[in-house]
Amino acid sequence: MPHIEFEQGFPGILGPMRFSPHTAAPMNLLANALMQADEGLTRGERELIATYVSSQNDCFFCQTIHGAIASDYLGDEDWSFVQSVKENYPETTLSDKMKALLSIAGSVQRGGKYVTHEQIAEARTHGADDRDIHDTVLIAAAFCMFNRYVDGLATTAPTDPDVYRARAKNVIANGYSAVRGYE
Amino acid sequence: MPHIEFEQGFPGILGPMRFSPHTAAPMNLLANALMQADEGLTRGERELIATYVSSQNDCFFCQTIHGAIASDYLGDEDWSFVQSVKENYPETTLSDKMKALLSIAGSVQRGGKYVTHEQIAEARTHGADDRDIHDTVLIAAAFCMFNRYVDGLATTAPTDPDVYRARAKNVIANGYSAVRGYE
Repeated sequence: MPHIEFEQGFPGILGPMRFSPHTAAPMNLLANALMQADEGLTRGERELIATYVSSQNDCFFCQTIHGAIASDYLGDEDWSFVQSVKENYPETTLSDKMKALLSIAGSVQRGGKYVTHEQIAEARTHGADDRDIHDTVLIAAAFCMFNRYVDGLATTAPTDPDVYRARAKNVIANGYSAVRGYE
Repeated sequence: MPHIEFEQGFPGILGPMRFSPHTAAPMNLLANALMQADEGLTRGERELIATYVSSQNDCFFCQTIHGAIASDYLGDEDWSFVQSVKENYPETTLSDKMKALLSIAGSVQRGGKYVTHEQIAEARTHGADDRDIHDTVLIAAAFCMFNRYVDGLATTAPTDPDVYRARAKNVIANGYSAVRGYE
């Protein structure tokens, strides 16, 4: 049972966002600015970072919806690639640059001070620039907020993967929005 | 040394925010919506929650600027009250309601799932409603983002308390803004 009363039919982050539209609006603007951006990292790579951090934070709703979005962008129909990134990204076929950025994201998930100069140097060796490093840190930091918002209020989450697949297509087509349900 | 190159003269979160104005804008809108709100918790109480969470995350810049803002709102001229809240809030003169909310904020800082039904029930016993609980969880979650953004990029921070006192008065008068320095 959620810690506060939410409107029926709005699972995960949608419940608190419907409860508090005036804070949801800038949160969705931030998600759009960060995740639906095309400078540097691709949208699929951004969603992969969000999924990995949400998985490290053990947030079922966020890792499933952002995993579904990442899978859609990356043509990962059965979600097996995203699953392998969550479980053991160093052993996947991801680029060395993305592996270095996921390592930075993993440090941010634990706390900002865990990011080392060595991790930054490694990412730069593989072609990451200031924008890539900035966006990786902010995506990881932002999902430490979104994950805590979802789980700190004990929201409920659907278990049917098809619900997330449909929602993923909606987000890809229309962006993040506070007021849309799972229509 | 910061992990990426920032414009001179913009310490703490201002460096990354100048680097990335299109993500800074919604982050500042969120800070204004959450912190400069008057329904339920007072502005001083909101800043106290932000300060406590930033302190638990060991983020010097955030705990000092938000501590300065909280102190200004609360008439805590020498910062001793805010310091005692950071160090041992259960032993302060804070209301039982605020102590229960800080306990929830402390759980959110560790991770959303650490918040228990017992903590929520305790807060309600002392008069907290859905809005208070929601705002406490979201303030704590948001500062887990802001703190990681500041420290994950290894930003620098002034050590002179007067810099923070002046900045606090600026924020109280003008709100949070991406483009202002320490003028």
